[in-house]
Amino acid sequence: MAKNFDVVVIGAGPGGYIAAIRAAQLGMSVACIDDWKTSDGKPAPGGTCTNVGCIPSKALLQSSEHFEQANHHFSEHGIDVKGVSLKLDTMLGRKETVVKQNNEGILYLFKKNKVTYFNGTGSFVAKVDGGWSIKVSGDKEEDLVAKNVVVATGSAPRELPGLPFDEKKVLSNDGALRIDGVPKKLGVIGAGVIGLELGSVWRRLGAEVTVLEAMPDFLPVTDQAVAKEALKVFTKQGLNIQTGVKIGEVKTTAKSITIPYTDAKGQEQSISVDRLVVSIGRVPHTEGLGVDTVGLKLDERGFVVVDEDCRTNLPNVWAVGDVVRGPMLAHKAEEEGVAVAERMAGQHGHVNFDTIPNVIYTSPEIAWVGKTEQQLKKEGVQYNTGSFPFMANGRARALGDTTGFVKILADAKSDEVLGVHIIGPSASELISEAVTIMEFRGAAEDIARICHAHPTLSESMKEAALAVDKRALNF
Amino acid sequence: MAKNFDVVVIGAGPGGYIAAIRAAQLGMSVACIDDWKTSDGKPAPGGTCTNVGCIPSKALLQSSEHFEQANHHFSEHGIDVKGVSLKLDTMLGRKETVVKQNNEGILYLFKKNKVTYFNGTGSFVAKVDGGWSIKVSGDKEEDLVAKNVVVATGSAPRELPGLPFDEKKVLSNDGALRIDGVPKKLGVIGAGVIGLELGSVWRRLGAEVTVLEAMPDFLPVTDQAVAKEALKVFTKQGLNIQTGVKIGEVKTTAKSITIPYTDAKGQEQSISVDRLVVSIGRVPHTEGLGVDTVGLKLDERGFVVVDEDCRTNLPNVWAVGDVVRGPMLAHKAEEEGVAVAERMAGQHGHVNFDTIPNVIYTSPEIAWVGKTEQQLKKEGVQYNTGSFPFMANGRARALGDTTGFVKILADAKSDEVLGVHIIGPSASELISEAVTIMEFRGAAEDIARICHAHPTLSESMKEAALAVDKRALNF
Repeated sequence: MAKNFDVVVIGAGPGGYIAAIRAAQLGMSVACIDDWKTSDGKPAPGGTCTNVGCIPSKALLQSSEHFEQANHHFSEHGIDVKGVSLKLDTMLGRKETVVKQNNEGILYLFKKNKVTYFNGTGSFVAKVDGGWSIKVSGDKEEDLVAKNVVVATGSAPRELPGLPFDEKKVLSNDGALRIDGVPKKLGVIGAGVIGLELGSVWRRLGAEVTVLEAMPDFLPVTDQAVAKEALKVFTKQGLNIQTGVKIGEVKTTAKSITIPYTDAKGQEQSISVDRLVVSIGRVPHTEGLGVDTVGLKLDERGFVVVDEDCRTNLPNVWAVGDVVRGPMLAHKAEEEGVAVAERMAGQHGHVNFDTIPNVIYTSPEIAWVGKTEQQLKKEGVQYNTGSFPFMANGRARALGDTTGFVKILADAKSDEVLGVHIIGPSASELISEAVTIMEFRGAAEDIARICHAHPTLSESMKEAALAVDKRALNF
Repeated sequence: MAKNFDVVVIGAGPGGYIAAIRAAQLGMSVACIDDWKTSDGKPAPGGTCTNVGCIPSKALLQSSEHFEQANHHFSEHGIDVKGVSLKLDTMLGRKETVVKQNNEGILYLFKKNKVTYFNGTGSFVAKVDGGWSIKVSGDKEEDLVAKNVVVATGSAPRELPGLPFDEKKVLSNDGALRIDGVPKKLGVIGAGVIGLELGSVWRRLGAEVTVLEAMPDFLPVTDQAVAKEALKVFTKQGLNIQTGVKIGEVKTTAKSITIPYTDAKGQEQSISVDRLVVSIGRVPHTEGLGVDTVGLKLDERGFVVVDEDCRTNLPNVWAVGDVVRGPMLAHKAEEEGVAVAERMAGQHGHVNFDTIPNVIYTSPEIAWVGKTEQQLKKEGVQYNTGSFPFMANGRARALGDTTGFVKILADAKSDEVLGVHIIGPSASELISEAVTIMEFRGAAEDIARICHAHPTLSESMKEAALAVDKRALNF
């Protein structure tokens, strides 16, 4: 007999598991279906983010950052180490442990919040009395009936046509997080967040890394001052980044992978690498969901069509996260998950798409919120800009990491903060103050008047705000 | 002939140099007098903060943190290092370089802003036509006449009666930053910010550290939940912290220092150490200022008496920073320096004493702003509280540092944030969001509704805010 729930959430990534927990908090009976398993067959909720995305990449970034420090910076600090060597299996094992802690954390949260969790694939069967019939396929089959359904099936890495991921030599984000030995030469196609983060990890661990990007500009979505600085720094670190290339037919042999390409000047080039990461974007994942069975509307690119409140074309069926329009970011998915749960409970959930921060976890980190300078120019908005370099920040000097800057864009008339762009140490944490200011529609003058603890990196935010009015104190 | 200035600032610490620069920005002719010199006799503006406080301590904290990571945590990350050893002179030399960068930064800023800098001691001579006659004594004598004077002479470490600092064995913050070898046993009297930060540095570098504190409670000014966690963590790290002690007569011999004390239970105890840091507070510094000559009013503890706008009893004489009432914090001094410069220019400078953050740069860091729970109880304020442990934060797990928590106190009726208390990784940076919220008089619900980037430590702020309403999502 079918089990009945007020809400069935399909997918336990950041959008799905958070929607499930919030709905349960609001008194609904909730199930969450997810098919992810650990390598040893145990349930692994958390989706791409937890299993093969944000979390494991940050674990490896931290470990490889320590390795980089030990190899290149300890001598400045007066720390003598002899024979720094890498036990890659231990490093990858630590990453797996961090992932498992997160998997288990979510299972604990489901139990605590009385969310019923099914490990399997969830798919629509039919519209029935009382809602939607949903089938769970997996080790055990289950029939559920849901008054409300939340589709949170996420996204999958896009393949290069004719070059399927084998996760041995041709790697998605998944395989790139578990290469069994540091490749001598690593190729990366696509200089986006994933390509840069994973390219940086393996570069630090000793690989010679070449990044090929089809777009003419580097990081076109970030503020161009930040992109320019990032390109300079990454190149200095040893990443060979080439933009404006046209990839030819990739050839894989037992020994290597050859990538012919036309460079930005129109010259024919070719590189041979041991492993190739393909990070050319992600596509919405709706396979096995039974989209056609019930007539769930997708757009021409495969995204589930939703209105601004995450309602699909089907009654009481919602969709959140990577599978719908908007940036593919875990925290955007979470916000939508919370808002949908609150809407189902008759509340007025809200997501402010104008204040969703972006982060690239390289070293230095890159983080931003709001408009870039090129966007403001294009939109004809009159603005003032203020920047402050970490080079002039006492804490950054004490840390030994003075790369980058904070840049603030403010409306020329009202002084309202329109965008904040950071490249530098702890940018991912510093951006939260900027988001907060923008949520309150604060002015650059507000940031400039707020007391910032000394010595902190966050003082650079205050100084950049002062610089908007041309009165930086420390630069 | 005397040189005339609109403003003469006495002291080039954070309060003084910032006041000088802001006054110059506002069109006044400004001089700044400071007697600090480097060990090789060069001008060293920046005061205690730059020379023997915030900046060098953070440089050593960073270096010693790397040493700690290499010795105790690299193996988890799969990084094998053989024979980690310390070159203390290099570590101290790096710290000196960082200090010099900051000294030189300030000299550059003076030049850029056309502030005339005098390296010497500034003292009041008399009230004269056109303002105040100020004499500079030092390598070169100068007579200045100032329309306005800003006293920013800072503070000095308090000695234990009968035990003067020799900076060889009996150390203030100054000597404790340049011990010429890691002491086997280090004693610290006073478990405040300085004692804990410097005790932590030398503990990490290999010293056996005992901290003796006269107060019965550990860190009585911090929220007691934070203090309790801090005591637990520091003790686990190997700091031997004893509170409620009564120090007897300290005896110094050529070989060691013996500190007899009565412990909290009334038992007579004694420790022998190689070096002793005395960090029992700081006293306002007005020596050589010529206070009596012009009748500048001090209070019974030696602070320059000022009103809430930093006006002294003398016309056009102001005072800021450690030498006046309020917390002895560099950023409080800076805020006062800016406000005083703006008031001299006829503007309406303002310092909000309720939103000045506090930081202790141990590992984990401790940071807070606003009221503690014990203060709210004492004041009879009805409040709600929400906490979130870093143990449940994905970024903290990836970093490998899950100590501590974020705790938010909000008004029971209005939900306005009244205090935020953090112990954990990057607390010093996370606090800036809390200060921002409090400056806007935001509610816990505001923090809870703001999108925080994933995975970041700052998500713990959002979760603690959700916990105020008992709806944390990830705990």
